[in-house]
Amino acid sequence: MLRLTDRIEFPSKSNDILTVGELLVDMISAEYDEDFTCDTYHKFFGGSPSNIAMNVKRLGIRPLVASAVGKDGFGKFLMNHLQEADIPTTCLQQVEDATSMVVVTKSRSTPIPIFYRGADYQLAYTPELEEALLHSNIVHFSCWPISRKPVRATVEKVIDTAKENGILVCFDPNYHPMIWEKGENGIEYVKSIIGKADIVKPSEDDAERLFGKDTPENQVQKFLQLGAKLVIMTLGKDGAIVSNGDETLQFQTVATEVVDTTGAGDAFWSGFYAAVVKGYTITEALQLGFAVSAYKLKYMGAVVDLPKLEEIQELYGL
Amino acid sequence: MLRLTDRIEFPSKSNDILTVGELLVDMISAEYDEDFTCDTYHKFFGGSPSNIAMNVKRLGIRPLVASAVGKDGFGKFLMNHLQEADIPTTCLQQVEDATSMVVVTKSRSTPIPIFYRGADYQLAYTPELEEALLHSNIVHFSCWPISRKPVRATVEKVIDTAKENGILVCFDPNYHPMIWEKGENGIEYVKSIIGKADIVKPSEDDAERLFGKDTPENQVQKFLQLGAKLVIMTLGKDGAIVSNGDETLQFQTVATEVVDTTGAGDAFWSGFYAAVVKGYTITEALQLGFAVSAYKLKYMGAVVDLPKLEEIQELYGL
Repeated sequence: MLRLTDRIEFPSKSNDILTVGELLVDMISAEYDEDFTCDTYHKFFGGSPSNIAMNVKRLGIRPLVASAVGKDGFGKFLMNHLQEADIPTTCLQQVEDATSMVVVTKSRSTPIPIFYRGADYQLAYTPELEEALLHSNIVHFSCWPISRKPVRATVEKVIDTAKENGILVCFDPNYHPMIWEKGENGIEYVKSIIGKADIVKPSEDDAERLFGKDTPENQVQKFLQLGAKLVIMTLGKDGAIVSNGDETLQFQTVATEVVDTTGAGDAFWSGFYAAVVKGYTITEALQLGFAVSAYKLKYMGAVVDLPKLEEIQELYGL
Repeated sequence: MLRLTDRIEFPSKSNDILTVGELLVDMISAEYDEDFTCDTYHKFFGGSPSNIAMNVKRLGIRPLVASAVGKDGFGKFLMNHLQEADIPTTCLQQVEDATSMVVVTKSRSTPIPIFYRGADYQLAYTPELEEALLHSNIVHFSCWPISRKPVRATVEKVIDTAKENGILVCFDPNYHPMIWEKGENGIEYVKSIIGKADIVKPSEDDAERLFGKDTPENQVQKFLQLGAKLVIMTLGKDGAIVSNGDETLQFQTVATEVVDTTGAGDAFWSGFYAAVVKGYTITEALQLGFAVSAYKLKYMGAVVDLPKLEEIQELYGL
């Protein structure tokens, strides 16, 4: 049981958090475009878990990234970006496929991304990956790597090893049929992974895609019934509901200014992780997570130049 | 035998040339970049046979394009581009995969493209494709579609149908291991396709990748021995050698100004096709092809705003 008033006691290790999965290029149109005429795109470092790694490094804890990139210019770009942020690249695997990419043409209606998956799903369970995992206290992943083979098997092994070794398993159940292997029931598989996770953080949309429409309270119950130990359900401007099955808390948003919502969920994860590692209680860590998310919302971009966690704490009077 | 002084007699049909294969987005860096820091890219209509279709339309003959694109923004962009050029899109197939893309980061040393292949290799042999083929006098394709399954089977059927129906089969033997399916001997397969082609146009690099280093004269012989009826071997600034096994001609380059070599080979094909369709002899068509290529070399970009063939003819005193 993860009690909301408790601190999580982590043993002393050489790393705090290992993110497993997508490290990719986001290719984003320079302008809003409704008729496919925009011809300028900008490339960005991307992939939700990798963004979390960048964030937590700035907040003041130690991340490692386990991902596969291509032996190409984009792979080198991503690797350089991690190295410049002083994040070790010992768990990056360079494979024959092209570095994965997501193309987003910004639109006033619904921007529909185009997914170019290559290297990312070749991530193998290597001795280096296992070593990094065993030297970490938290492992984080999203639906992206489990949506395809062979990386799915790698994540399954990561979960098993993490559970055998008392490593906290955190899962972003951001299921979307567009990334899933065709002809497969992704929803049932994602549910099976929720059952193995210590902490999950669904948005309302995530919950609806998995369970259909329902009240936030009911959706939280469904995640708990599947076996998740702590469910953090974010409700956009309406804050969040958090429950461990025994205790339930409501959080109001602390965002004062919303410039860009991209990466807000990852910013929450980042603040929460930094705080639990730094010895705050789960309730305090949740508050700090929402504060980091509120800070990120004031700026454009998926990854913004976050200050140290303590500065955010002071800024938001926590 | 394709005699160099002969005209090719084509029956009256509703279309002149069908190109089969890659229609894709070229994503090209705005600047030269040696350390992967360039973050701005521009998207272009691309794919060698599709560029030939655009060119021949401008030169004054009728093309059709058989290609597969994704049901996404890039697919719509490519389709719109053809429609704006007044090229029918009846043979475009929209499939579930992402529209194929090639990313090129320009470099002063050797720019290494990254290939993102998706929709393009799903091109199926449909009744619409067969109909378009039977209503055309020439079919053109490159190594791109034959490098992967299932589109390879489509091209094989196209070749068989073309040969049964007296349609001229033209093949660009631009073999490169980077686009080939891993673990397969692409060279042997390309050689088998050369044997089925009426006309092939290798560059010196293409020949070297297929046969190793040798003199241009010897390389031409190798293509002829495989069964090609007419071999047009381009030698860059040294012009070209053309042979049908019986007659051999040398061509000097007519290029006066070289701004950008991208698309020069496709410009040659385009001028040659427009000329044979318009009733010029093969020798005249070769001269017109080299003139169109020389015209293209004066401008930046893979596809430039070509004038009508007759204007090029006048410009180059042919």
